[in-house]
Amino acid sequence: MPNYVVGHKVPDSDSICSAIALSYLKTTLGEPTVPARLGELSPETKFILERFGFEEPELKLSYAGESLYIVDHSDRVQGPDDIDDATILGIIDHHKLGDITTSAPLECWIRPVGCTNTIIKMMYDFHDVEIPKDIAGAMMCAILSDTVIFKSPTCTTADIKCVEALAEIAGIDDPKELGMEMFKVKSAVEDTPMRDLVLRDFKDFNMNGNLVGIGQLEVVDLAIFDSFKDDLHADLKALREEGNRHSTILLLTDIMKEGSELLVVSEDESVIEKAYDVKLDNGRVWIDGIMSRKKQVVPPLQDAFGAK
Amino acid sequence: MPNYVVGHKVPDSDSICSAIALSYLKTTLGEPTVPARLGELSPETKFILERFGFEEPELKLSYAGESLYIVDHSDRVQGPDDIDDATILGIIDHHKLGDITTSAPLECWIRPVGCTNTIIKMMYDFHDVEIPKDIAGAMMCAILSDTVIFKSPTCTTADIKCVEALAEIAGIDDPKELGMEMFKVKSAVEDTPMRDLVLRDFKDFNMNGNLVGIGQLEVVDLAIFDSFKDDLHADLKALREEGNRHSTILLLTDIMKEGSELLVVSEDESVIEKAYDVKLDNGRVWIDGIMSRKKQVVPPLQDAFGAK
Repeated sequence: MPNYVVGHKVPDSDSICSAIALSYLKTTLGEPTVPARLGELSPETKFILERFGFEEPELKLSYAGESLYIVDHSDRVQGPDDIDDATILGIIDHHKLGDITTSAPLECWIRPVGCTNTIIKMMYDFHDVEIPKDIAGAMMCAILSDTVIFKSPTCTTADIKCVEALAEIAGIDDPKELGMEMFKVKSAVEDTPMRDLVLRDFKDFNMNGNLVGIGQLEVVDLAIFDSFKDDLHADLKALREEGNRHSTILLLTDIMKEGSELLVVSEDESVIEKAYDVKLDNGRVWIDGIMSRKKQVVPPLQDAFGAK
Repeated sequence: MPNYVVGHKVPDSDSICSAIALSYLKTTLGEPTVPARLGELSPETKFILERFGFEEPELKLSYAGESLYIVDHSDRVQGPDDIDDATILGIIDHHKLGDITTSAPLECWIRPVGCTNTIIKMMYDFHDVEIPKDIAGAMMCAILSDTVIFKSPTCTTADIKCVEALAEIAGIDDPKELGMEMFKVKSAVEDTPMRDLVLRDFKDFNMNGNLVGIGQLEVVDLAIFDSFKDDLHADLKALREEGNRHSTILLLTDIMKEGSELLVVSEDESVIEKAYDVKLDNGRVWIDGIMSRKKQVVPPLQDAFGAK
């Protein structure tokens, strides 16, 4: 029975590419391991997998009795629902430390860098395992995605150096150009149901006992939302009610202007206003410089809720 | 204001030596960091510090408003009481993943090896920083202590190789001989109050809402306890009542015979009997092969309590 590697619910490119990259590394080290996913792939991730010739990882929601590695999260609400009945062998992540616990020692590689794949590159280097060309390409794209082509405040020198090294292995001359191509795919929102857009990159957080769902759409021009922003906001409201959430927030991030508009639905808007020191206007506010959910949106909100 | 490195309450040699070793590494990397401790040093740790010429780290119980690295634990009950008011920069540990969480990304090096200092050696290698002779000696002794001179089931190839490398740096020809000298110091129990012995290497665990305290004394011959085992057991009973614990357990480990006698005081002995598949006789039982609290005692008990 192989081990699994799985990223978070509503998988993004980092969750999928790091599952593929870590599976190959572990298998090469003599531990048969396969990548899996907890949900449907985004257009961006499909673009990456097609570009480098990968199949979609297996859709697998239940892990009872199995052994697995967790990538790109350490919060229980973001992982498999039956994680308590599985054995967690390790966690590779670049977020705040969440509430997953284990009953036995494990392997954790957690670093304050821009992308899980940057850490997985360190693991390849540590074990002195050569990264195949196609895997290097997928890892590189995941880092370009997570760091918004190095523009995100989460981006570190380690991420930039890692992209350079992976581009060389993958034989890609201009990583930034490929990154822009990828973000144009990501920006395509025509003919997509509102709910699919809201959930495209959506994560739930337990903030001092309050369930808060935060989605993000990163595009090259915010104007594409103009004609249906009200519909997005209405769906965000429905999503809050269906999930008994305290708040739902959607970040509309303009990667060229380097800021985000927040759409907010909350049972107490003052918590959100306090967190970011802003006034909401009809549940909306533009904040200059906000590009990272992990680094700029979650920590102040968590503090506003009084959780650590 | 410097950052701190602190190990668990009732510090053992690994908690103290890893705080010293990590502080030096971080300071060398340009981040002024000082080692601290949450309690009194054991005779074994004093022996190590004297042998390699170190002062005792600062006794510091409060970290509100400070930034710190946590070593050798990730359970809240084992760390500083006001950890919620501090910023956790990183965790270096070799135990199960505990319930410490953070509100911002951090650095975690957690590996299923025998000693935190084995992981800190990896960090020195990663950053290509030379380990000073005296720090190498202290790190080596901590690994010999945690792995019971390689006899513990927690000991891995990485720990053995690490001791060899550190011994060479420290200029020590026979690490095992120094290890036995250290364990003879550790075995000295004359003229020590019962409470001091019970608490010498004692850790509390939150097991599915139940507080369980587990101490361990590792000696070269269990016969030294014969004349006062009843007194130890009586003190264990008092300690359970004072702390409102579900159970208190003391492991008397014979490092030559490679097994442990368990002294148990519990509001429900059947949980302990179920965990280890044994029958307690007057609250006591000898179990062959049990040497590691972390690997052999905590996980089955945690499972018996139904926590994961």
